[in-house]
Amino acid sequence: MQVPAGDLLQKINSPSDLKQFSEDELEQVCQQLRQYIVDEVSVNGGHFAASLGVVELTVALHYVLNTPYDQLVWDVGHQAYGHKILTGRRDNFHTNRIYGGLSGFPKRSESEYDTFGVGHSSTSISAALGMAVASHYKGENDRQHVAVIGDGAMTAGMAFEALNHAGIENTNILVILNDNCMSIDPNVGALKEYLTDITTSKPYNRFRDDIAFVLGKLSQVGPDAFKIAKKLEKSIKGTLLKQSNFFEALQFRYFGPTDGHDVKHLVKVIRDLTQIPGPKILHCVTVKGKGYALAEKDQTKWHAPGLFDKITGEIKKAQHDKPQPPKYQDVFGHTIIELAEQNDKIMGITPAMPSGSSLNLMMKAMPTRAFDVGIAEQHAVTFSAGLATQGLVPFCNIYSSFVQRAYDQVIHDVAIQKLNVVFCLDRAGFAGADGPTHHGAYDLAFMRCIPNLIVSAPMNEEELRNLMYTAQLENKGPFVIRYPRGNGVMVDWKRPFKEIPVGKGRKICDGEEIAIVTIGAIGNEATKAIAALNSESIYPAHYDLRFVKPLDEALLHEVFTKYSKVITVEDGCLEGGMGSAVLEFMADNNYNSQVVRLGIPDRYVEHGEQPELWAECGYDAKAIAQKVKDLGARQVAHIIAS
Amino acid sequence: MQVPAGDLLQKINSPSDLKQFSEDELEQVCQQLRQYIVDEVSVNGGHFAASLGVVELTVALHYVLNTPYDQLVWDVGHQAYGHKILTGRRDNFHTNRIYGGLSGFPKRSESEYDTFGVGHSSTSISAALGMAVASHYKGENDRQHVAVIGDGAMTAGMAFEALNHAGIENTNILVILNDNCMSIDPNVGALKEYLTDITTSKPYNRFRDDIAFVLGKLSQVGPDAFKIAKKLEKSIKGTLLKQSNFFEALQFRYFGPTDGHDVKHLVKVIRDLTQIPGPKILHCVTVKGKGYALAEKDQTKWHAPGLFDKITGEIKKAQHDKPQPPKYQDVFGHTIIELAEQNDKIMGITPAMPSGSSLNLMMKAMPTRAFDVGIAEQHAVTFSAGLATQGLVPFCNIYSSFVQRAYDQVIHDVAIQKLNVVFCLDRAGFAGADGPTHHGAYDLAFMRCIPNLIVSAPMNEEELRNLMYTAQLENKGPFVIRYPRGNGVMVDWKRPFKEIPVGKGRKICDGEEIAIVTIGAIGNEATKAIAALNSESIYPAHYDLRFVKPLDEALLHEVFTKYSKVITVEDGCLEGGMGSAVLEFMADNNYNSQVVRLGIPDRYVEHGEQPELWAECGYDAKAIAQKVKDLGARQVAHIIAS
Repeated sequence: MQVPAGDLLQKINSPSDLKQFSEDELEQVCQQLRQYIVDEVSVNGGHFAASLGVVELTVALHYVLNTPYDQLVWDVGHQAYGHKILTGRRDNFHTNRIYGGLSGFPKRSESEYDTFGVGHSSTSISAALGMAVASHYKGENDRQHVAVIGDGAMTAGMAFEALNHAGIENTNILVILNDNCMSIDPNVGALKEYLTDITTSKPYNRFRDDIAFVLGKLSQVGPDAFKIAKKLEKSIKGTLLKQSNFFEALQFRYFGPTDGHDVKHLVKVIRDLTQIPGPKILHCVTVKGKGYALAEKDQTKWHAPGLFDKITGEIKKAQHDKPQPPKYQDVFGHTIIELAEQNDKIMGITPAMPSGSSLNLMMKAMPTRAFDVGIAEQHAVTFSAGLATQGLVPFCNIYSSFVQRAYDQVIHDVAIQKLNVVFCLDRAGFAGADGPTHHGAYDLAFMRCIPNLIVSAPMNEEELRNLMYTAQLENKGPFVIRYPRGNGVMVDWKRPFKEIPVGKGRKICDGEEIAIVTIGAIGNEATKAIAALNSESIYPAHYDLRFVKPLDEALLHEVFTKYSKVITVEDGCLEGGMGSAVLEFMADNNYNSQVVRLGIPDRYVEHGEQPELWAECGYDAKAIAQKVKDLGARQVAHIIAS
Repeated sequence: MQVPAGDLLQKINSPSDLKQFSEDELEQVCQQLRQYIVDEVSVNGGHFAASLGVVELTVALHYVLNTPYDQLVWDVGHQAYGHKILTGRRDNFHTNRIYGGLSGFPKRSESEYDTFGVGHSSTSISAALGMAVASHYKGENDRQHVAVIGDGAMTAGMAFEALNHAGIENTNILVILNDNCMSIDPNVGALKEYLTDITTSKPYNRFRDDIAFVLGKLSQVGPDAFKIAKKLEKSIKGTLLKQSNFFEALQFRYFGPTDGHDVKHLVKVIRDLTQIPGPKILHCVTVKGKGYALAEKDQTKWHAPGLFDKITGEIKKAQHDKPQPPKYQDVFGHTIIELAEQNDKIMGITPAMPSGSSLNLMMKAMPTRAFDVGIAEQHAVTFSAGLATQGLVPFCNIYSSFVQRAYDQVIHDVAIQKLNVVFCLDRAGFAGADGPTHHGAYDLAFMRCIPNLIVSAPMNEEELRNLMYTAQLENKGPFVIRYPRGNGVMVDWKRPFKEIPVGKGRKICDGEEIAIVTIGAIGNEATKAIAALNSESIYPAHYDLRFVKPLDEALLHEVFTKYSKVITVEDGCLEGGMGSAVLEFMADNNYNSQVVRLGIPDRYVEHGEQPELWAECGYDAKAIAQKVKDLGARQVAHIIAS
């Protein structure tokens, strides 16, 4: 639903329109931009609080900079709604994150103002430095390169790697540290506390005031003291201001902290900074959710609240007559506590996703045993490995697409050493509205090639619980459990734990001629397909493989012995995925069945609801049923059970 | 060859033996340990300069700490030779890095003193923190946890992630920063310059001296000044010493810099530090190669020099009558310069491997176009992506096993955006003496599942040149070229460039009934096998696939149409690798040939020379020939060319 924009905002179809306003009018522009974001997100959904927090910064940057010639990279990107609205996408903004509509993140193919595609955090400094070095190489020395990065994103290793490099390249790069103390959840770690110290105590300014007084007093003491005073001043410049600040230690010129909601002051500061060559950092203090009182108060809840009544702040939830199945993440969150109550070796680890993974439940219930380590997937995995060397059983919960950040650590620190780390990979398969950067499309392929890993996927909540239960039993070695975003299929999910033998799949139903082999929750689409086919007297068999590594060889021998046609279905990439593992088994055992593999094709699939994407890629219930018919399934009176 | 140890060193079979010596005797122990490393490495090979640099640190740590109860993690691990010699492995040390012998790195299965398996850099702080948190949880609060990490390894993001977390956990963790300004090559980056500044200017000590004087003077001025003095002191403690130091900003207590070659002083300092709870960092300045003059002078050359005459320092090189084929890395190093001379868009990037990749040639020849970004694979990739957005063509050279560190960046920042980044993955396949941490076993599998990537492997030097040439032609998109460690097969390799059509393999020879499909340099083993078979009148066909993505479908149609038996050979993992891609093609196109896949099996293969490992895994020339026979190859008079 498109909503009307304020009178000033309506005139802005590109940053050049914004530049027509006087500096005095910018506050009003900010107000209208903020209102527009509230109006749009409340009725169309999306990320909310992050973009509200950078309204003034967004306006100031586009007012001062000569975008797109000057290059602006928004870290993570869900803070970039204002940027999208000011750069020609206002009237399309109501399609944000909707199937076929605008992406929720900056995207190069969407606009020349989107200099770099983002989604995962902490890439902006590296990308902006690449642009800056390219400009320097081409002699475009008037060009500005700005990365806007949150203090949460700054904890990720790659941001530090980029700072360390940028500090020695003499390029026009400005890093704007958007310090709001929040990722999705409150930030953690030493750097965050350091930034808070700077902001609250402003020691630099205070010290500078003091030193002025001291220098004055010393000059009364005599020539000896004056000599010392000079030396002291040098120390202050050379030590305190150059080496002492964390960022100055990395050879960035540090400015701030500055008020990120004073648009006129921001315009002045940014304009000044563009005159100073070399690497610079502007420490900008903002409030996530700024201007919407409820969001300021509960920033995690309002990170991406869904639809809401913008007046009352009531978040709209679907009404159901009957109890609904839980989210998989909540099954994880409740189950790990149950298990940890029984097994004092269990620890929980999340890299900055307490609420997204529901590990926040354990962090509250067992604060000494659950760790949010910040946006730091690499460390999360190797820290877990360290815990495991001491006989503990860490459950390391990482979104599937984010574990790509810790791939080497999974191999080098966990798998080679066969340590008992349980990887719970949430958001596996299509992630929905977040789109291609967040789809957990590749994990089955990139995990199953690693020796020593057990790689599993539950078909429903009970299976997830039982896999978690199994994974923490004695010396199982590294154990991957991947499960999807969203809700499961069972209302009555909290059943007693049962061990699942490692590498053991299950037969769901016998059939005639054709077998469907699935892994994970997408198996429920096969179940639906089979129900529909049964009503037409078509009876394919259904096997839930459960483990893509190790394979259930007995199950697969049965499949290839009894069925001449096999359809594999996975919510993951076709190249190297579960279907490919089945083909390897078939070749190694000299079977000759016809195998058709369904899953994510070899291209990037855009954002949309999961069922929309399954349909697009041809493996929702309807497509599976059709494929069974395409393979020439015969109608039979009944099937003979094996 | 085992060499005799000095009289003191001979008595040390475990750290408890070391503890029997007086502090005064430790210098002599160090001398003998250093001599032993020189004696051993000169005749048996291995890493050299790193372990020489930490002799005193090694002795001091094992003298003070109660290892293995106290836990010591050696980052990267090639600095741990002294540690191995002192912890019961002296008399086996001559088998270091030899097939079946000791690992060149700490390894948990080798000794209880090896608390954590290492090989890749920068994992030690995360691992030690995991151990420390586990001890804290178990109430073992007397236990020490020490990570020894080089200043080069400190530039990697995960080290920063670990510091950021460790700073807020109140555990007994001591990070010893082994500051020698070197990785394999000289370190780069802002942090390195910062550490050098601290070391050379000792500003903290100087400032502290000054402030004592100032405080004294101020107290003469009066009560007002005294108040300021108090405030100033607080500022010094609160600001300069707490927030100002880079590490103090991350809530580590910083000590140093201290002389890493004064063993008695180190014993005192380390003993003192074990009394202080919480996270601490000891900045220890050492000289890589210490005590061997030539190594101190040329630290890169002496990182791992091979065999040498310990008296003259002459490095022993195999003598050849005829010219030998070059190393693949040198083909890369020379070719990128040739290409860059023709194409001004080409840039070269290495994360801390100038000499290992031979990008040092370009860094010397074209310093503005070749970048060493430090141990920072993640940044290296996204920095390359940033360059590519500006129309440049970066060649990002990373060892195959190290690109696992940048997997998300390859997907999220390069492939999704289809940017023209050329990834040259050196050390693909078995890496040799470095062992399982360094084998480039998985790249074909984890790269081919990613949309938009072109994934190729040259069979020889000419092919490598032509693939590099092809990759830099207009808008090819992301292009992976993986090639092995060591020498190629062509003396006359520097031939004119020829474009290779993307996704186009080649037929090397026709054959009878059986086809061998290979990818990459391991294809030369197939060539040898075929030569041997031909002499027995057995004629398998040979196809070099060149690209695992996109597949050469025409070539594969020919293979499956003409040959009923297919052997695939790759120097990479069998799960999801090239053979698996061939099976996918076969299934998708309803062929029914018998396919046998040869490659790296689903387990970790230890260190050894490449031919030893190929033989172990059954895909050297001999094993390939045997497999052809096992498949029932018939002897024929001649083959009919197609």
